[in-house]
Amino acid sequence: MKLNDRGLLVVISGPSGVGKGTVRRALFNMPNHNLVYSVSMTTREKRPNEIEGVDYYFVSKETFLERKQNGKFLETAEFVGNYYGTPLDKVNEQLDLGNEVVLEIEVDGAQQVKKKVPDCVMIFIVPPGKKALYDRLKRRGTESEPIIAERIAKANREFKLAHLYDYIVVNDEVHNAADRIMAIIRAEHAKTERSIHKYMEMIEEN
Amino acid sequence: MKLNDRGLLVVISGPSGVGKGTVRRALFNMPNHNLVYSVSMTTREKRPNEIEGVDYYFVSKETFLERKQNGKFLETAEFVGNYYGTPLDKVNEQLDLGNEVVLEIEVDGAQQVKKKVPDCVMIFIVPPGKKALYDRLKRRGTESEPIIAERIAKANREFKLAHLYDYIVVNDEVHNAADRIMAIIRAEHAKTERSIHKYMEMIEEN
Repeated sequence: MKLNDRGLLVVISGPSGVGKGTVRRALFNMPNHNLVYSVSMTTREKRPNEIEGVDYYFVSKETFLERKQNGKFLETAEFVGNYYGTPLDKVNEQLDLGNEVVLEIEVDGAQQVKKKVPDCVMIFIVPPGKKALYDRLKRRGTESEPIIAERIAKANREFKLAHLYDYIVVNDEVHNAADRIMAIIRAEHAKTERSIHKYMEMIEEN
Repeated sequence: MKLNDRGLLVVISGPSGVGKGTVRRALFNMPNHNLVYSVSMTTREKRPNEIEGVDYYFVSKETFLERKQNGKFLETAEFVGNYYGTPLDKVNEQLDLGNEVVLEIEVDGAQQVKKKVPDCVMIFIVPPGKKALYDRLKRRGTESEPIIAERIAKANREFKLAHLYDYIVVNDEVHNAADRIMAIIRAEHAKTERSIHKYMEMIEEN
């Protein structure tokens, strides 16, 4: 019996290269969850294999900027001339249905979300050590030295942002990290500030 | 990999008759935990089957009151002329070893513990409804009507103390309640305020 019916907004973030996407996929592969992805809105061209409302909501630049102006995004970002954003109304619909909405986003976006939805659950994924992350960033592709150096510099800045989060989860083994996040979600539902309202109703009723 | 090495002080409390003891036993029967009981100190006579340091630490009234005077208890209670208390030094030894110390105590004691150890994890066990608890209290034994009425009155006062706790856990099915408490313990270890110190050390080192 759950004393909090509303879903949680779970923000998964962390330094570049830490494996946020891998952890998020492992999380969704776990049994018995009611996690949902948030589908982003974008102004970039729809690719032939992409489905509207599944991969993205595709909109014009005008529509996007008007929505942004009206506070209808949880967070937005610009990437090579295109806009990306998380639509607030879609997220709230899912939370009202009791689903946990998982956002896997960069640290800048995470801070925007925290401001808009203070009761979101902020999780910072970290590597088991700096070196592990550097190795990952170097292995990642065929990029040139300056690009790798730039990524490492970015990760070094992002490492220091842990204090802005509610939880720090080490991505030592991906299934351990996913397990910990599931435990966090269960615990957050039991938190007094989320559950006391329904509890007080319950003890009044019967 | 855990970023918080120190054990947690976990306080399990709730209205009289809610089944705190049953939940605590179910918790200790779960696999892969490092939970330990706190052994109480008492001034009552040792019974033949009881073992010093396992069931209780048995001390004289003078020793007990001197310890109490010196702030060496987490909480104390008096029951039919005998004193009972949780020795602070024994609890700290276990926490330093990385064990989670579980205290299953009445609501009055729980508030004393919170004052002494503000970073303890306070869990309020509640019944799935008021009626379920009344039925339990009535079924419990062969007590007379006035005693049952007194117990119900006590439970009704205790019901309202949920706001003093960090978490509210419904004891609908005992294994569900134990599962939720385990999730809370895992989540608490990942909390930023408990894990950031070791995390900062880690990213400085390698």
